[in-house]
Amino acid sequence: MKKKLNLILFSGEYDKAIAALILANSAKEIDIDVTIFFAFWGLMLVRDPEKMSLEDKTLFEKMFCVMTPKGPEDLPLSRMNFAGMGKEMLKVMMTDDDAPTLPAFLKGARNKGVKFYGCKLSMEVMGFKKEEFIPELEIVDAKDYLQDALTSDVQLFI
Amino acid sequence: MKKKLNLILFSGEYDKAIAALILANSAKEIDIDVTIFFAFWGLMLVRDPEKMSLEDKTLFEKMFCVMTPKGPEDLPLSRMNFAGMGKEMLKVMMTDDDAPTLPAFLKGARNKGVKFYGCKLSMEVMGFKKEEFIPELEIVDAKDYLQDALTSDVQLFI
Amino acid sequence: MKKKLNLILFSGEYDKAIAALILANSAKEIDIDVTIFFAFWGLMLVRDPEKMSLEDKTLFEKMFCVMTPKGPEDLPLSRMNFAGMGKEMLKVMMTDDDAPTLPAFLKGARNKGVKFYGCKLSMEVMGFKKEEFIPELEIVDAKDYLQDALTSDVQLFI
Repeated sequence: MKKKLNLILFSGEYDKAIAALILANSAKEIDIDVTIFFAFWGLMLVRDPEKMSLEDKTLFEKMFCVMTPKGPEDLPLSRMNFAGMGKEMLKVMMTDDDAPTLPAFLKGARNKGVKFYGCKLSMEVMGFKKEEFIPELEIVDAKDYLQDALTSDVQLFI
Repeated sequence: MKKKLNLILFSGEYDKAIAALILANSAKEIDIDVTIFFAFWGLMLVRDPEKMSLEDKTLFEKMFCVMTPKGPEDLPLSRMNFAGMGKEMLKVMMTDDDAPTLPAFLKGARNKGVKFYGCKLSMEVMGFKKEEFIPELEIVDAKDYLQDALTSDVQLFI
Repeated sequence: MKKKLNLILFSGEYDKAIAALILANSAKEIDIDVTIFFAFWGLMLVRDPEKMSLEDKTLFEKMFCVMTPKGPEDLPLSRMNFAGMGKEMLKVMMTDDDAPTLPAFLKGARNKGVKFYGCKLSMEVMGFKKEEFIPELEIVDAKDYLQDALTSDVQLFI
């Protein structure tokens, strides 16, 4: 039977999102099934920057929608100003080493058939609609996540 | 045999504590056993705000006791000032959506019979006593945690 | 068959590194095998402070090498200025309780035979060479990590 990797991406940070996607892509390359459950800040990674909508939102939801990261390129580092190093410096270092950057890793995961789950409650609280995310994102709740995690061989909270 | 979820809550952050408790409550609702091992900053979530004691503490332990969060309402967000959004804004958004807030999730977990473990070493280092926590909290060490984790189906570090 | 604990240490923070090493040491004490995969910021914990090298590095790699933590003593707290408490205060509290500090926990893990894996891609992006780390560190890629995780009983992302 195929092995399965299950990730919750809770963090909305550039470096942690890269870590999650490298694990997901590497797993698919050695024939392991992968589910990523995007919850809370993690949802920022799978927003479609072209599809922001302010309709039917409360004032706070509108503010939230406008002020938070609008997709992979927009995520901050987990240790901002750590050692004075910014995200741009990291991106240059990655490019110098021919390592793909975050959008490329995300594209890879979409092409390789990683399963994308979005947390229903987080989306409701933040006021996001399904149409504001990449089309692969399936909306599920915490119980669906748990059922998937229970049938997985490795589960990580990132 | 009943399935089992095992969480370490290391972080003392409002949003991560909510994530942990939503997972715990959802698991209990589908008949999965749950243990949460509160370590380090995570212990702040299960302090009893009414039972702070300064007796028999060193100067640093007293300072620590007074200056750290005194229960669920006091926890900070994991990304403070992220997008200018504060904890109060998040709480309003949650209330607008009829989502319970952190103290309600904690109460739910206590009522549903989630097992609460507190890390012995963290408590000793921070100078906390058993009486300063909610009564359900059982004091165990890292080895007890590992034995529980080994018999669980899903383990997460939050 | 021996049980196995598998940790990814992604964070380069003093308190999270302590948590990882306490789990690792406690596991070895009850005869559980342990692997720690040091990725990204986590690699800072296993740098050898005496063996920093600037040869064959790009300008950014040199800056990175000089400005980031040079070993266990140098790691920051995960919640800097949390409650005004600094790392030094925590270290005094740990010493007051006869709890070992981070370098002692790291030494313990090395003596007890914890397996140390370093993430190949992180090292390449950051410009680090094998010689700049403690000698036990074996360089592996994300697929090797996944194979190890799949054969483990507990997996955590820290």
